[in-house]
Amino acid sequence: MSIKQIMEPRSVAVVGASRNPAKLGAIILRNLVNLGFKGCIYPVNPNASEVMGLKAYPSVKDIPDEVDLVVIAVPAPQVPDVVRDCAEKMVKGVVVISSGFKDTGEQGAAIEEQIVKIAGKAGIRVFGPNTTGLLNASKRLATTFVPLSGLRSGDVSIIAQTGLFAGAMLEWLVTSQKFGVSKVIGLGNKCDVDDAEALEYLGDDPETRVILMYIEGVRDGRRFIEAARQVAGRKPIIVLKSGRTEAGSKAALTHTGSLTGSSQIFNAVCRQLGLIQVLSFEEMVDLAKAFTLLPLPRGGRVAIASITGAGSVLAADSCVEYGLTVAQLSSRSLEEIQSKLPPWSKASHPIDLEPLVENMPKAIEAYKLALNTALNDENVDSMIAVLLAPHEYWKESKFWISDEELVETFTEIRRTHPGKPLVIHLMGAKPAVDHWTEILEEIKIPVYPSI
Amino acid sequence: MSIKQIMEPRSVAVVGASRNPAKLGAIILRNLVNLGFKGCIYPVNPNASEVMGLKAYPSVKDIPDEVDLVVIAVPAPQVPDVVRDCAEKMVKGVVVISSGFKDTGEQGAAIEEQIVKIAGKAGIRVFGPNTTGLLNASKRLATTFVPLSGLRSGDVSIIAQTGLFAGAMLEWLVTSQKFGVSKVIGLGNKCDVDDAEALEYLGDDPETRVILMYIEGVRDGRRFIEAARQVAGRKPIIVLKSGRTEAGSKAALTHTGSLTGSSQIFNAVCRQLGLIQVLSFEEMVDLAKAFTLLPLPRGGRVAIASITGAGSVLAADSCVEYGLTVAQLSSRSLEEIQSKLPPWSKASHPIDLEPLVENMPKAIEAYKLALNTALNDENVDSMIAVLLAPHEYWKESKFWISDEELVETFTEIRRTHPGKPLVIHLMGAKPAVDHWTEILEEIKIPVYPSI
Repeated sequence: MSIKQIMEPRSVAVVGASRNPAKLGAIILRNLVNLGFKGCIYPVNPNASEVMGLKAYPSVKDIPDEVDLVVIAVPAPQVPDVVRDCAEKMVKGVVVISSGFKDTGEQGAAIEEQIVKIAGKAGIRVFGPNTTGLLNASKRLATTFVPLSGLRSGDVSIIAQTGLFAGAMLEWLVTSQKFGVSKVIGLGNKCDVDDAEALEYLGDDPETRVILMYIEGVRDGRRFIEAARQVAGRKPIIVLKSGRTEAGSKAALTHTGSLTGSSQIFNAVCRQLGLIQVLSFEEMVDLAKAFTLLPLPRGGRVAIASITGAGSVLAADSCVEYGLTVAQLSSRSLEEIQSKLPPWSKASHPIDLEPLVENMPKAIEAYKLALNTALNDENVDSMIAVLLAPHEYWKESKFWISDEELVETFTEIRRTHPGKPLVIHLMGAKPAVDHWTEILEEIKIPVYPSI
Repeated sequence: MSIKQIMEPRSVAVVGASRNPAKLGAIILRNLVNLGFKGCIYPVNPNASEVMGLKAYPSVKDIPDEVDLVVIAVPAPQVPDVVRDCAEKMVKGVVVISSGFKDTGEQGAAIEEQIVKIAGKAGIRVFGPNTTGLLNASKRLATTFVPLSGLRSGDVSIIAQTGLFAGAMLEWLVTSQKFGVSKVIGLGNKCDVDDAEALEYLGDDPETRVILMYIEGVRDGRRFIEAARQVAGRKPIIVLKSGRTEAGSKAALTHTGSLTGSSQIFNAVCRQLGLIQVLSFEEMVDLAKAFTLLPLPRGGRVAIASITGAGSVLAADSCVEYGLTVAQLSSRSLEEIQSKLPPWSKASHPIDLEPLVENMPKAIEAYKLALNTALNDENVDSMIAVLLAPHEYWKESKFWISDEELVETFTEIRRTHPGKPLVIHLMGAKPAVDHWTEILEEIKIPVYPSI
């Protein structure tokens, strides 16, 4: 069975839906209720007739209606029996949240094999074990045991071979980023559904535009390569591969029981297929933000405008070091800028915003002039601007820009140059930088903490 | 004259101390007054008898007392006359804030030469032009035109060849970091005082323990190498060199009129002398934080404890990739951890915190056990811990840790292991991560946004 039907279930049962609010099963149930899952929810608990106001059932078998997805949050040794019930009930898929399987040694591995056998015979697809499970924002579905405060629907999807990490990663995304998430597929120990199948599904998913992957080890290399080849041409795939070193591999073995394989081979595959490798979750989020908020540039010619000379120099260096080129502005653009400069200053590129600000009534007008001129220039494919986020104690100076001015100006810049990516680095006091970052990312202009 | 006397002046005059609060001279004066400069302050303004409640003088010559330092914030063409006045008054040093000199072409360069000549003859040392100037936290001295909201005194000092950048850099440090600054030396166009002399001074300065440098081009390579050789053995020098590429060099020429020189040579010099090169201001601050808050480790053996398996794998990879080694815990340490683990879990290193938390009454006790055990181990030189910062909606779970518990536990860990650096990466919701970062860095445990 394809995992599409399981990712979009009409009904979900939670086995281990405790009335103790600190238990994982209780949090899973609460998330489903709070997010407003668009389907039926069935708590399964042999010791309760009701949990969180929902009628509870002693076992999956006792649920009177069809059940598409069962989330299992009971100790590992009890899981095979639950899967047997699911088989009898003809559920489509199960998410095994519990750990204590291949991740803990031989005994656990044996239980895991039992599950695979029972589920396989019944045609049930298994996610996990040892995972935070699934999320589908448009269906308001989440099986994670990390309490979710909310969810912003978007077009970034995540495949993660891990348990708690995927939960904390999601929590960070939800609370720190202005872009939204579409799907999360937690793979855990990958006893059945693996990276390749998840990738195929997201490749075809019309709601997913950007794919993030955290991988410790690939089980079926051939199938993974095939899936990546299919998808990478259509959607950016950003990969954080761990277990890159011997010490990391050793740690991965105790984590998800994964064999991490050779780094050299994995790197070569990524390069060949155009997968984008990153070395940290921070870098992954940085790239996801760019891919989801911005259009793709048509070329590598970058315009630079900076309020500090140092910003110009550092930006020019970075462009070259990352394989881009510093754009050459047309003479018409330079003339336009020159017309607003004080006589002692000569227009050049990178654009020095400081003399423009000095010579114009307000900083926001200098920003508007420089950014519009550069983005209009046919020699420019994308732009980086280094701006000063003014703290409240700048209110008396021409650097001061109100929230309204900021939103209006940058919404207009973004609207009139839909095909050219604009990224921003902010200098100044932290409260001002944080405040402007919030505002700018809300209107789809990504801000980065480093040039 | 050595710059020490100028960095610790008994009196400061501000030329261009306008009564218009938006003017640079007015901000400079306000900063001096607000910070509580420990010395006399003389506004110089031919059109006012009083500025900000201080008696003003028409020119430097009219000040009745001795003047050690004069800050000049009037347009470039007027600066030579002011320096002439300073020569007559026998001041020790001047900071030329104004731009419009070598940074703007031939005409400006000619004015700059005039200044050098007049000052040189009178034995006046010149900082700048085109700089935010000087800061000395213990004397409560600042000549910057960036409004300062406050200042935390510490042992990190900065040498920066730039104007506004040094100001915004300082503003960011003051508002985002828990460590304090001792000195800032802005060099601008470096017509007189240069990197080498500033470095020599900070090398001998007992209040400076860590040195940060932003360099576009070195004027006197031989002297710089000599100074760096002297100082690098005693204090860490972290260098952000821009103008590393041809495009960057071109930008630097318009910024501070600098010739940036060959990157290869500069890199080789850094490697040989042990200067620590970084590629961004963000990286510079990350390293400064580590050097000022932590002791130096005695070796490269790193202990790892993580609340997520992925954290352990990523940390192990990073250790190896950065030339460190993952520590081997002693069997005694492993036994100590095993005694608190559930039966299905086997103690190993990296330490998986999750089963410990599961098996102990509260997460904070698991953290305490793991960190103390690892830091006590003689096979460990330093440690990284990946923890979950619990959001308020975790209050009912055992992951919840109150601010008091956090401070008490980590102050004690830090106190009992003074010789072993401990760094932390936090996962979870952004508000919780930000809150914990504040608390932990206040007690000198640096937190990083990436493993």
